[in-house]
Formats: sequence, C-alpha cells, structure tokens
Amino acid sequence: MGRLMSSEKARKRELRHAVEEFNATYSALLDNQEALTDWPRFFTEDALYVVLSQENYDAGMPAGIMYAEGQKMMHDRAVAIAETQMFSPHHTLHVVSNTRICELQGANSFTSQSNFILLRTLLEEKTKVHMAGMYDDVIVSTDQGLLLQQRKVIYQTMEIDRDLVYPI
Amino acid sequence: MGRLMSSEKARKRELRHAVEEFNATYSALLDNQEALTDWPRFFTEDALYVVLSQENYDAGMPAGIMYAEGQKMMHDRAVAIAETQMFSPHHTLHVVSNTRICELQGANSFTSQSNFILLRTLLEEKTKVHMAGMYDDVIVSTDQGLLLQQRKVIYQTMEIDRDLVYPI
Amino acid sequence: MGRLMSSEKARKRELRHAVEEFNATYSALLDNQEALTDWPRFFTEDALYVVLSQENYDAGMPAGIMYAEGQKMMHDRAVAIAETQMFSPHHTLHVVSNTRICELQGANSFTSQSNFILLRTLLEEKTKVHMAGMYDDVIVSTDQGLLLQQRKVIYQTMEIDRDLVYPI
Repeated sequence: MGRLMSSEKARKRELRHAVEEFNATYSALLDNQEALTDWPRFFTEDALYVVLSQENYDAGMPAGIMYAEGQKMMHDRAVAIAETQMFSPHHTLHVVSNTRICELQGANSFTSQSNFILLRTLLEEKTKVHMAGMYDDVIVSTDQGLLLQQRKVIYQTMEIDRDLVYPI
Repeated sequence: MGRLMSSEKARKRELRHAVEEFNATYSALLDNQEALTDWPRFFTEDALYVVLSQENYDAGMPAGIMYAEGQKMMHDRAVAIAETQMFSPHHTLHVVSNTRICELQGANSFTSQSNFILLRTLLEEKTKVHMAGMYDDVIVSTDQGLLLQQRKVIYQTMEIDRDLVYPI
Repeated sequence: MGRLMSSEKARKRELRHAVEEFNATYSALLDNQEALTDWPRFFTEDALYVVLSQENYDAGMPAGIMYAEGQKMMHDRAVAIAETQMFSPHHTLHVVSNTRICELQGANSFTSQSNFILLRTLLEEKTKVHMAGMYDDVIVSTDQGLLLQQRKVIYQTMEIDRDLVYPI
C-alpha cells in the first residue's frame, strides 16, 4: 500500500484526472443547449469528430452517422442545430465514467477512453437511456489545456431515434 | 504533459476529490434505508435543501417538490419517511458522476455541480431510471469535513412517480 | 480549504484512485467479449466471486446466482461462456461510480465498495439497464497491482433475464 507508483503510472493518473475534468465541462456544455455553438472549442482546429456504431468500429469501418473534420465543420453543424433545436423540447444529461488513459504518445499527446450514458427526457415523459457507449479519444495537452485531436463516439445502442444530429 | 497546474486548478482538483468522496458517502446513506435519519448530518445547521425541476431552475423559480430549511426540518422529514417507508418495499441506487468545482468563494466555501442518476427497483420489477439530473451545491469546508450549505437537486425527469418524498 | 488531510484519509484517497483504475480496466475487459477468458486475472488465486441479490446480502444469506471459488473455477466458467456466447449477440457496458474505501485491514488489504450500472443492448433493440447494484470487495495490493480477494456483486434488480451466466 506504501508502494511507489512508477512515473508512467503517476503521469497516467494525472492525465486521467485532467480528462475527467475535461469531460465534465464538455458534458455540461452539451447539456446546456444554449451553449451549443461553443462545442468546437473542445477540439483542435483540424480535429476529427465521428459518431459510429460499435459494429462499424469493431469491423474497422469508419462510416458513421455524424462526421466532422475540423472546427469549421463542427461550428457549421452546431449553428445549424442551434437554429432548429427549439422545435423538439427536451433535456439531455451526460454521465461519463470509467475514464482510462491508454497510451502516452510523445510529450503532449495520448489516447484515452471513457464510458458514457446519454439520458434524454422528452416533454411529459420519463427519463430514458438514449444512447450508451464509449468515447475513444486522441487528446493533446496545450497551453490552453486539453484539446481533442480526435473523438470517436462509439455507441452500442442499435436502435436510435432519428434526430441524432446533436453532438454527443 | 509536464506542465505545472496553477494553484487554483490544483485546489479545485483537491476539492473535487473531496466532493466525490462526500457524494459517495451521501449516496450510500440514502441507499441504505435504515440510515435515513442520519441524512441531515451532511448539511450545515441552517442549510437549504430543495428539489426542483430543470424548468423551474432555468426560469429562476424557486418552487420545488421538496423543500427543507435547516437540519431540524430535514430531520423531521427523514423521521416521517422512516416511519412510513416499510409500506413500499424497493431499492434505490445513486450513481453520481461528472463532479466539477465551479467557484471558490472565500477561504472555506465553494460551489460545485455533479450529475446523478437515481435508479429504483420495485419488488418483482426491472430496475428503472427513476430520476436524473444535477446536484447544484454550495459547500463549506469545516473541521468535520465538507458540509452542504445548500443543495439544489435539479431533476430533468418530467413525469415522476407520486412518492417522491424521499431525499435524493 | 488548506487543511491538511490525515494520513489515513490520504491513503484512502490514493487507494480509491487505484480502485477506480482497476474497475475501469475490469469493465473494459468484460465489455470486450473476446477477452472474457482473461477475467480471472483480476483475482487472487484463491479468491471468492459471488453474484447475489440485495435481499440475500441484507439477510446474511450467501446463496447467489453465480459462485466461483478460486481462479480455476472462474477460468472454467469463462471458457464455457466464451464457447456459447456467439449465440446471443449483444453489447454490454459497465458504468462504475461512487467508489469508496471502507476499511484498511493491515498493510496490504482493504475493503471497498462501488456502485455499478450494467447496460445491455440486444440486436435491433434499445439500450436497457440490465442490472444495477454494488461491488462489495476485499482487495489486496501486490507487486502486480491490485487483485480481488473477494468480489460480491450485489444486484438490486429483482427480475433478471435468464442468461445471467456472464461475469459482471
């Protein structure tokens, strides 16, 4: 119990705590629908964001139900959603857990995975599990804090509602 | 990755870990129905506890479905529930995540938010999401550890079962 | 806020972080069905693993729906499942949270509890809460990292699907 951690293990723990804080902020922004257009600021300028099924992920097929390459494409998507969202009043809640740091890649880059549950509540209905799955990330550490170089949202849910244009 | 954290960031991380431990203990107590009357000990003597919908919270309306001002009122409520609870056998499980420290207010006080899922299982039924939402807290650090000065339980669930007299 | 933690509290926090990492790895392995036969490596050679209902646990009755004593029995079970699992395609996702260190027992052993939600998605269906409950653990700290000396999976779900032969 008094054993010293290896320096790699200590670095991974430090990064895990930073990623947990990053994901808590990321989730809070997405759950606050008015802030949606700020979503791209969690990414590097040339980042990749894709939402794909576990089946496609396991099979090495990149095709997803949402895809954005670069902050500009993300911003366009967020603006488009912000302009239409008032037509389907609902709440979302992201619960992110099980964060693990996978691989340290050079001085400022690493891979990480976290599990998430996305709950959704429609007007006058019960809260339901809308989607569950995993964030599969490449993250860079910058002077401004952590930024996503790549986020693959891998969902297990096989039947999903049509309106899945929202970022997750 | 070797960057030094600012001292504010380090303090917030330290507090986040303390709040996570606080919430784990708080949850375990509520999920153990026999311990319910100990619930007020997580609060300061003059604390405010309120359970309100996301709609009311967003609109700045304080009205909630449960309200207690001060440990004494909380204690009366807990005793009343403890005396009646045997009539509806069920289990609850609190899963708390996404804890973030928002603002440091002076030397011993800060605000914090966490997301929660409250699962409930009725006799002979499947486990269901009973409620999901956010704890919105003002917390003070004392010699006895953290205490809630204010806990707003903001639930997103729009249709909830009648018996919501239990603390959350 | 600048208060020093007691050394016991600091040790418990350190262990909590280690258990969180342990559970994230444990969960990822179980959610990757191809890795199932590696499951026993999270346990000591003579560990006890049991899955039992909250009712039985509260009543002090040890009877469970799954029981394994020692890594060998766990391995046999895992192999048996691995050989049959292809007949019911589905995904699982473990979300573990609320980890607390209960008691330090000597230099290298401690008890710990965590809450979990096990989500399951069957082909062409929505993601559902399959089981929710608590890990009640005795953990030993070894040169190879943490190992389970005992894991009781205490589920609250009162109606569960038949196929609950999978480790949780």
